[in-house]
Amino acid sequence: MPHIPLPDHLPGITGLLEYRLDTAMPIRELTQLLLRGESTLTQGERELIAALVSSRNCTNFCNAAHTKAADLLLGDDKTAAAVKADIETAPVSDKMKALLQIAALTQQSGRAVTPEAIGRAQAAGATDREIHDTVLLAALFCLYNKYVDGMATVTPTDPAYYDTLGDRIVNRGYNRPPGGYPAQ
Amino acid sequence: MPHIPLPDHLPGITGLLEYRLDTAMPIRELTQLLLRGESTLTQGERELIAALVSSRNCTNFCNAAHTKAADLLLGDDKTAAAVKADIETAPVSDKMKALLQIAALTQQSGRAVTPEAIGRAQAAGATDREIHDTVLLAALFCLYNKYVDGMATVTPTDPAYYDTLGDRIVNRGYNRPPGGYPAQ
Repeated sequence: MPHIPLPDHLPGITGLLEYRLDTAMPIRELTQLLLRGESTLTQGERELIAALVSSRNCTNFCNAAHTKAADLLLGDDKTAAAVKADIETAPVSDKMKALLQIAALTQQSGRAVTPEAIGRAQAAGATDREIHDTVLLAALFCLYNKYVDGMATVTPTDPAYYDTLGDRIVNRGYNRPPGGYPAQ
Repeated sequence: MPHIPLPDHLPGITGLLEYRLDTAMPIRELTQLLLRGESTLTQGERELIAALVSSRNCTNFCNAAHTKAADLLLGDDKTAAAVKADIETAPVSDKMKALLQIAALTQQSGRAVTPEAIGRAQAAGATDREIHDTVLLAALFCLYNKYVDGMATVTPTDPAYYDTLGDRIVNRGYNRPPGGYPAQ
C-alpha cells in the first residue's frame, strides 16, 4: 500500500506523476529528452540502460516497464534479460557493454565511475555525449526508482499491464497523455 | 579531472548544466519547484534535506553548496552541521527529524523507507505532501550527486567559492542566470 493516498488505477510511477503535476512536468520532459530525443544511441539501447539500472535497484515496476519497452524496440525478448543477467556476455556491441558498465557503476555511486571504465567506452568508440547521457540517464533512473519505491507504490503482477504500458511508452513517449488519465 | 571536457571556470554541477542545455532546463526547473516553490517546509528546511543527502553520498561539491545555502537561510552555521552529524540530536523540530530520517532512508534505497518511518513523520504532524516532497527531493539529490561524481567534476577547495555560490542560490534560485555564464 502506498505511503500516501494515490489512485488505485494508477500504479507505480503513473500515480505519483498525477499526484503533483507541476513537478511531474520537468521529470517527464527530462525523460523524453534522454530516452526519445536526438541521440546516436538507439531508443532500444537507451531503454536497456533504464531497465538495467531499475533491475539493479530492485524496482520491479520500472524494471518490468523498461524491459518491455526495450523488448519492443529491439524486436526480441532476450537482449534486455541477457544484459540484466550479465552485461559482458549479452548480445550487444562492445560500446554498449562499456556504457552499460558505466550505468551500473553510476547506480552504485557516482564515485564508482573510474577513468578505466570511461577509457574502455572511449576505446570502443563512445563519444563524450554518449558517456554524459549514460551517466545522466542512470542517475535519472535512480531518481525514479527511489521515488517509486520510497513512496511504496503498487507494482502490478499481471504481465498484461506492462504490455500495455510498454506499448504506450514506445509509441507515445513520456509526455503526459493529452487530458491526463481517465478518472478510473 | 572531469571524464569529459568541461569549462575550467564552471566546477561541479555548473559546468554540466552548461554542457547540455536542453536537459539542464528541466533539471533546474524541478529543483526550483522543490527548493524554492510554494511549500509548508521552509527553504532552509529543504536545503537541510539537500545537504544531508549530498553528505551521505559523499558528494563534496553539493554538500558544501547546500550546507552554505542552509546556513544562510537558517541564519547560523551550526544546524546543517549538526543534522549531518546526528539527525536525532540536531536542533530541528520533531517533524523535521522524522522527515530527515525519511530522506536518509531514501538515499540508501527507496525500499528502505518503512511504514514506521512514515508513521513517525505523520505522528509529528507531517502532511502527505511534505512526505512526498521529502522523498522526491532526496531522490533528486541522488540524481545530482551521481551526475556530479559520475562525471568526475572538479570540487573547489576554497571556501570562498561556496560563499559566492550559496549566496547565488539563496538570492537568485536555481534557474539559469539570464544570458548564461561569463565565457571566462
